[in-house]
Amino acid sequence: MPSQAKAYAAQSATTPLAPFSFERRDVRPDDVAIDILFCGVCHSDLHTARGEWDGTLYPCVPGHEIVGRVTAVGGDVTKFQVGDLVGVGCMVDSCGHCPSCQASEEQFCETTGFVGTYNAPDTVLGGHTFGGYSDHIVVKDRFVVKVGHDEQDLAGVAPLLCAGITTYSPLRHWQAGPGKKVGVVGIGGLGHMGIKLAAAMGAHVVAFTTSADKVEDAKRLGAHEVVISRDPEAMAAHAGSFDFILNTVAASHDLDQFMVLLRRDGTMTLVGAPEHPHPSPSIWNLLMGRRSIAGSPIGGIAETQEMLDFCRDHGITADIEIIPIQEIETAYARMLKSDIKYRFVIDMASLKQAA
Amino acid sequence: MPSQAKAYAAQSATTPLAPFSFERRDVRPDDVAIDILFCGVCHSDLHTARGEWDGTLYPCVPGHEIVGRVTAVGGDVTKFQVGDLVGVGCMVDSCGHCPSCQASEEQFCETTGFVGTYNAPDTVLGGHTFGGYSDHIVVKDRFVVKVGHDEQDLAGVAPLLCAGITTYSPLRHWQAGPGKKVGVVGIGGLGHMGIKLAAAMGAHVVAFTTSADKVEDAKRLGAHEVVISRDPEAMAAHAGSFDFILNTVAASHDLDQFMVLLRRDGTMTLVGAPEHPHPSPSIWNLLMGRRSIAGSPIGGIAETQEMLDFCRDHGITADIEIIPIQEIETAYARMLKSDIKYRFVIDMASLKQAA
Repeated sequence: MPSQAKAYAAQSATTPLAPFSFERRDVRPDDVAIDILFCGVCHSDLHTARGEWDGTLYPCVPGHEIVGRVTAVGGDVTKFQVGDLVGVGCMVDSCGHCPSCQASEEQFCETTGFVGTYNAPDTVLGGHTFGGYSDHIVVKDRFVVKVGHDEQDLAGVAPLLCAGITTYSPLRHWQAGPGKKVGVVGIGGLGHMGIKLAAAMGAHVVAFTTSADKVEDAKRLGAHEVVISRDPEAMAAHAGSFDFILNTVAASHDLDQFMVLLRRDGTMTLVGAPEHPHPSPSIWNLLMGRRSIAGSPIGGIAETQEMLDFCRDHGITADIEIIPIQEIETAYARMLKSDIKYRFVIDMASLKQAA
Repeated sequence: MPSQAKAYAAQSATTPLAPFSFERRDVRPDDVAIDILFCGVCHSDLHTARGEWDGTLYPCVPGHEIVGRVTAVGGDVTKFQVGDLVGVGCMVDSCGHCPSCQASEEQFCETTGFVGTYNAPDTVLGGHTFGGYSDHIVVKDRFVVKVGHDEQDLAGVAPLLCAGITTYSPLRHWQAGPGKKVGVVGIGGLGHMGIKLAAAMGAHVVAFTTSADKVEDAKRLGAHEVVISRDPEAMAAHAGSFDFILNTVAASHDLDQFMVLLRRDGTMTLVGAPEHPHPSPSIWNLLMGRRSIAGSPIGGIAETQEMLDFCRDHGITADIEIIPIQEIETAYARMLKSDIKYRFVIDMASLKQAA
């Protein structure tokens, strides 16, 4: 039987998020039902809720950094049991058959594209998917991952499901590790995870920030060096020295200042798309050094599980501030001012306690 | 004893190339003296002679697609003998000690940068280097390569020293070969070599051109398919299917129309830098598919030798039109109209016969 879910939703691009209820599907044989305990707050939530990207479907229930406890499993589910702590990230389905899905790179699903945790067509119930700003969710087992952290760390695990995997996947793909010099540009929700993960992988990590007041914090997060990117001399001292740069800044900015810091065959990978294009990067900087500019979106489900296990083994969680869902609009306003170190996480008990 | 060389030089950005003579250095112990038989005409020659790039040193003797016969060798030279057919490309020296030079990737020399065959500081005689629009040249043996083609093919070998290696190197680096679908954008001096080489490597080659009248010729060069890039339907039919695209077009153009043709983890490599920037490429196209945009300049000396041997084994030369040096300005004018299939090559006998 379908179940009634409590949630917070935006009814239009201009209305604040407010209480909302809707129907979750019944648990099918390969489904896992999850009581949501915490949900991280991603910039994508804000962009989507406010219709800043094309194609928001209202009512919009955001949230794709979900952790919770299994309350029911379908008859075919063998990997999960009632009571397990689990996570759900940005995807809840994909075709399962194309080469990318077969390689567990579901984020690149070549037939249908992946089904987003929110704002995607819901092929089961019709309408569109509703995300993690809700009290529970029902998800195909293939898109659920196990959380091995201690329960008291659970709120800090939630952002790993998007911010964590989005930085972990490119760091792994471009082989961050011992002997490699890795840059992380931007120290925010994504960047602070990038620093923690690259350092845990054994790379020499240099953080780039425009804010002098983030230097100490970047070191605390694990950066071996911190460079103020507005300081031309400090930048020049690193010319031609990086194997890999993870650029987490989604605002339009000068890419060339970082490209010249790459060594021969180095790559800078962008994990955010700016609203307005970056200034066109210099082709000379690509030619001179056979350098690359690449992009990377989230990561596959198998890699998400690998990332969670890696974070458990290395004692890594996100740096967070816990809020009740009633304060989501205040949180959005503070995010727009970058007034958060480094991720808001909604304690979903606040939703359940509400009338 | 230094020797007097006959040449053609530009005396300024606005004067046509005209007869000129200058001194070549004496043959040092590690030098090879070469009687120049043919020299290809590269767009860089034109840009440099006419001061279209910053930093042209006048008088300017262009030419870096040189083939000829060894006339003398220094006492320490063991690889070459008088009478050998040899080639010289874009480089005549580098530091020899940095990691890139040690890897025979001299084009990326990390200390001094490589010394260009023309328009670079001449560390032996002072002044600057003079290129292949001349009757002979003296070059350090490490920067001379052996030509294994038959002598009657020699004129068509000259362009391999720049156009050939500039396309061969990225095709090898990004592993063009059997089972790979490779695009070549632009069918000119570089592109026509890219098609021939990628086909000989065993890749499935698709040529992209804006000119319907180049379709048949591209097939003759070895392309398995040819796509008119102005035809949106023809382009869409190849969406998400390329492992690698070699983009030889140096004029500013829309990169996105090609980026969307790359499959997951595909790379488009640019081998030319436009005078005016390309429109800023879409970051979404990079994210969706973990695609890369890269650059690649010429190739190292060891790889240049490998390329020449590969071309000999596969019967590959450039498609050329031979001119006397007295017609160089006419050739430049035709190059600007793309009125050449696909490379002018100067028969240096014309220089020697002149008074």
